[in-house]
Amino acid sequence: MKTFISDPLDPRLDDIRDLNKSDKSGAGFVIAEGPLGVDRMLESPYRVRCIVGFASKIEPYLDCGVPVFEVTRETLAQVAGFDMHRGLVAAADRTAAWSVADVLDGARTLVIMEGVGDHENIGAIFRNAAGMDVDGVLLGQGTADPLYRRSVRVSMGHVLRLPWAKLEGGYTTWQRSLGQVRDAGFRLVSLTPHPEAVHIAEAIAGAEKVALLVGGEGPGLTEHAMRATDVRARIPMAAGTDSLNVATSAAIAFYERQRAQLF
Amino acid sequence: MKTFISDPLDPRLDDIRDLNKSDKSGAGFVIAEGPLGVDRMLESPYRVRCIVGFASKIEPYLDCGVPVFEVTRETLAQVAGFDMHRGLVAAADRTAAWSVADVLDGARTLVIMEGVGDHENIGAIFRNAAGMDVDGVLLGQGTADPLYRRSVRVSMGHVLRLPWAKLEGGYTTWQRSLGQVRDAGFRLVSLTPHPEAVHIAEAIAGAEKVALLVGGEGPGLTEHAMRATDVRARIPMAAGTDSLNVATSAAIAFYERQRAQLF
Repeated sequence: MKTFISDPLDPRLDDIRDLNKSDKSGAGFVIAEGPLGVDRMLESPYRVRCIVGFASKIEPYLDCGVPVFEVTRETLAQVAGFDMHRGLVAAADRTAAWSVADVLDGARTLVIMEGVGDHENIGAIFRNAAGMDVDGVLLGQGTADPLYRRSVRVSMGHVLRLPWAKLEGGYTTWQRSLGQVRDAGFRLVSLTPHPEAVHIAEAIAGAEKVALLVGGEGPGLTEHAMRATDVRARIPMAAGTDSLNVATSAAIAFYERQRAQLF
Repeated sequence: MKTFISDPLDPRLDDIRDLNKSDKSGAGFVIAEGPLGVDRMLESPYRVRCIVGFASKIEPYLDCGVPVFEVTRETLAQVAGFDMHRGLVAAADRTAAWSVADVLDGARTLVIMEGVGDHENIGAIFRNAAGMDVDGVLLGQGTADPLYRRSVRVSMGHVLRLPWAKLEGGYTTWQRSLGQVRDAGFRLVSLTPHPEAVHIAEAIAGAEKVALLVGGEGPGLTEHAMRATDVRARIPMAAGTDSLNVATSAAIAFYERQRAQLF
């Protein structure tokens, strides 16, 4: 079931129109790009609205029950607003797919972000979390939208698959929501470069359930958030160097968590 | 010692002219941006040719023995070819600062890259290496230039400080150069997502000196390179996920190496 569309102004292509613009506003639909992204969107709870691409790229999707529109490279570039050389894009409704309770249910390892404003870092954290057996993601305040196009892309589509939800509360009150994570049996571990924090391996050791908190680039976690956790943990850094990128720090913490369950 | 320059065509600004262009060609000088980058360049073995910036940014460098040129934002944008909002840039001679023997001398942990073509990944590997006590970097074939402007920036200037050198040989012969690394007492550890490889913790355990090999995005290490190493190591990945980004994998291996020496 496919339809060839040659007119860039055809309203059936509105879902994928001006992608750079909708990316900036954060409005519009969830967008997945390339075969990997589109496949993960189709496997996700997000309702896919349409798939658009070159003839050679849409072939696998003709029987997936979603409207498929064939376009030329020129048409796609005009609609999207830039040259999408991968030639395949899908749009889905932007709805909250999971609640906090859904994320907590059955989880053993979580990551909680506060103030992570960079979309690539958010995407990378989801990618690393999915790759290293983290069961879900909770968002405190100040963290940018994981459904932004760049986050979806950098996450390799995992923001569409890995359960995540926003914790309630404002900048100085969301930390109270950590109580329900603790009540669900999680040890709350703050990641900080502070030299007096304990080594991440010690902070994680012996815990049945672990929630790892990471803060934004630059400021890191707020003192308010760290106070609401059980332990402050660090990755040792060489003298005269800067702290690691937040997605890299998170990946190391995920690795340590996975390691603690193996050895 | 500073000179105000108002003419964007002044030849004294040639070292920092058309930075995007020279970035692409890989020619020209080594460029450092911002106070952190410029400080690290000044501490490095690279001979700094000049420092150029806004009046407010060049103040700390007036007595550092290097020509300092004050420019306005408009002049800097015209010379560099784009708006450098950080307002501070330095240029240094592009010379090999270290030999392979220099890198091996006294080192206990090294990273060796093969086919890492992405400049941001190279920069991130240097940043992570510097942060987690890696002593030096060796480059096999197919790895892009660490002195490219974007690599310098992403590395936080650490490509200028952390000893690195290129191993001799072509695409199918450089692997022989690994012999001299082994002769210097290093255990050679290949990082691969292959499920039959041993866990990275086991691969590293008990080694006095470790050289970690990482391959390019997508293909990973060549079979030829892996055969020349002592052990193939993996970071366990969840089912249905992709391998980690190369800089993230390297960071986890650096962490594990550091951890093995602590516990």
